Amino acid sequence: MKSRDMSLGIDRRALVSNLVLLPALITPLLSSPVQAQTTPNAPLASWNDGPAKQALFDFVRTTTDQGSSKFVPPDERIATFDQDGTLWVEHPIYTQIVYCLDRVSALATLKPELKKIEPFKTVLSGNPEAMAKLSMHEVATILAATLTGMPVDDFEADVEKWLVTATHPRWKRLYTDLTYQPMQEVLKYLRDNGFKTYIVTGGGQDFVRVYSRRVYGIPPEQVVGTMGGTKFGYDKDGKPFLTKEPRLLLNDDNAGKPEGIHLMIGRRPRASFGNSIGDREMLEYTAAGDGARLMMLVLHDDAVREYAYGPARGLPNSKFGTFTAALDDEAKKDGWIVISMKNDWTRIFAFET
Amino acid sequence: MKSRDMSLGIDRRALVSNLVLLPALITPLLSSPVQAQTTPNAPLASWNDGPAKQALFDFVRTTTDQGSSKFVPPDERIATFDQDGTLWVEHPIYTQIVYCLDRVSALATLKPELKKIEPFKTVLSGNPEAMAKLSMHEVATILAATLTGMPVDDFEADVEKWLVTATHPRWKRLYTDLTYQPMQEVLKYLRDNGFKTYIVTGGGQDFVRVYSRRVYGIPPEQVVGTMGGTKFGYDKDGKPFLTKEPRLLLNDDNAGKPEGIHLMIGRRPRASFGNSIGDREMLEYTAAGDGARLMMLVLHDDAVREYAYGPARGLPNSKFGTFTAALDDEAKKDGWIVISMKNDWTRIFAFET
Repeated sequence: MKSRDMSLGIDRRALVSNLVLLPALITPLLSSPVQAQTTPNAPLASWNDGPAKQALFDFVRTTTDQGSSKFVPPDERIATFDQDGTLWVEHPIYTQIVYCLDRVSALATLKPELKKIEPFKTVLSGNPEAMAKLSMHEVATILAATLTGMPVDDFEADVEKWLVTATHPRWKRLYTDLTYQPMQEVLKYLRDNGFKTYIVTGGGQDFVRVYSRRVYGIPPEQVVGTMGGTKFGYDKDGKPFLTKEPRLLLNDDNAGKPEGIHLMIGRRPRASFGNSIGDREMLEYTAAGDGARLMMLVLHDDAVREYAYGPARGLPNSKFGTFTAALDDEAKKDGWIVISMKNDWTRIFAFET
Repeated sequence: MKSRDMSLGIDRRALVSNLVLLPALITPLLSSPVQAQTTPNAPLASWNDGPAKQALFDFVRTTTDQGSSKFVPPDERIATFDQDGTLWVEHPIYTQIVYCLDRVSALATLKPELKKIEPFKTVLSGNPEAMAKLSMHEVATILAATLTGMPVDDFEADVEKWLVTATHPRWKRLYTDLTYQPMQEVLKYLRDNGFKTYIVTGGGQDFVRVYSRRVYGIPPEQVVGTMGGTKFGYDKDGKPFLTKEPRLLLNDDNAGKPEGIHLMIGRRPRASFGNSIGDREMLEYTAAGDGARLMMLVLHDDAVREYAYGPARGLPNSKFGTFTAALDDEAKKDGWIVISMKNDWTRIFAFET
């Protein structure tokens, strides 16, 4: 099967700049002054001293010290990270959703009849009010139409192409530039200490795998995400290929996260990092094992340098505001560490000096 | 949830020794004399010189030599191995099926009503003729009853316990002793040269993961097998756990093998090893990539030291005889290497001196 020529980018800019207005939550809170500190090559160089940084140091020390009663053999050092809102920006809209909406334009070029059919008509209109009213079923239709039905190789090539052109409306930078530098340092610090780092995301497994190595140093097989089936077949020359099917195998969110971890990794993580109620079961599953365990949650409380949304701790609610009061209570009760972006991080992005 | 006390082993010996008669295929062919050779610590020490050993050496040389046009970066060095009949003995019956049949006895102890219900009644009778007539649907019922419905942790503990007691009827040794020493050397040789080795088996992913590291040096996350869903929940003390569900996610055989490889690994292997028609699509998928690729098939042509079954090349057919003439033709046409157990291997098992 020949790769299709995908005409990307049509209406994309207008679409994304309208979408940006949807959640309308760039609330102008004041952030505390950033504290200068530590040498750049030390572990966790972009972290201020405090309980979060200390918890990371303590966990690594206790699990890698052979004399410690909580020593963890290298083979068992597994750490899992949510992606959206934990490793990179999830506002104003998940990056993968932006990709899917962009793909609707490309699809409509290939199949002009879609321009007259809902929900594609609404997406192509770029009307934010109309788009905000799309039902879950309609959103699912858009995801199925843009993420399935093509050969796996074509999908990967298309995502790769999109990633080097699409930019975030606020920072005007590639989405892949918008990973949190302090979390990149956690990934590296854990790997330097023998931990195998995994992404465990509600996003599409195939989507995230396209850039996981380049962006996070995490190979495709260490990405656990929402998984769809594929279908093996042969092209007209008898060459085998896989087609992405609209058949959900696992929705890797909430309870799906520990289920996905079992499916893909086969054992319980030693450390888990999230930022929302969708990560709760992953953290609970991690915490339920014996020995040293580390559970951490990123709190978006920095409206100046990134965004501020809870709804816990008086932070504004939003479409993505899933750091709930219940999650906050569970974190307090069970000793999970909450990372304050405002207080714990000296910078958010690598491009900030 | 409390672990159940499983009374294993009831009727097991009688059951297995009857099952052994089922395929009745220990055909008394003569094997060629074994050739002594090489030093024990050299790579592939249990291999005779010949095209198979040479193909392994050539593949590793060309993919790891930076000056070679077919050099493969370490990150891309993925090798996949079928298990039953490729890494260990699959005769007279798959090890996992023996486990399931044994588990029927344990189940019937917990639930005596099963003794009166088919297909459990037949299995408990130990009557080989009756068992040979079980339908696929009845076998599926047995697999579902014995492999699902329990907490993941209980299942793993039970398999572990079974593995250290159950023995193969012919060699009177643990099943885990019956791995092919020459294939263990291939696993090690590839790993020593930077390859990540995976098992890709039609067997249950959770079953094989229990012993994969101990037996093959392959960690759980590098086992791709037939996958079922799990369900996250809480026990009465609020502790989270996963239950194995009778919900098939992927049948990792035939076309399911490349689909499973994509799901679990996310890219195409560089080398694949199998022994049956169920491995054909995996080898085709491997072969369809660019650059150096290695596809190998183990041929069971050694009735004296192991078993002989085809049905290709005039070898007897059997329930497991899936090295078909069509597979043999495809191997010849596409340059896949056929490994003759009789001619290529100086010994079959590590316990042979």
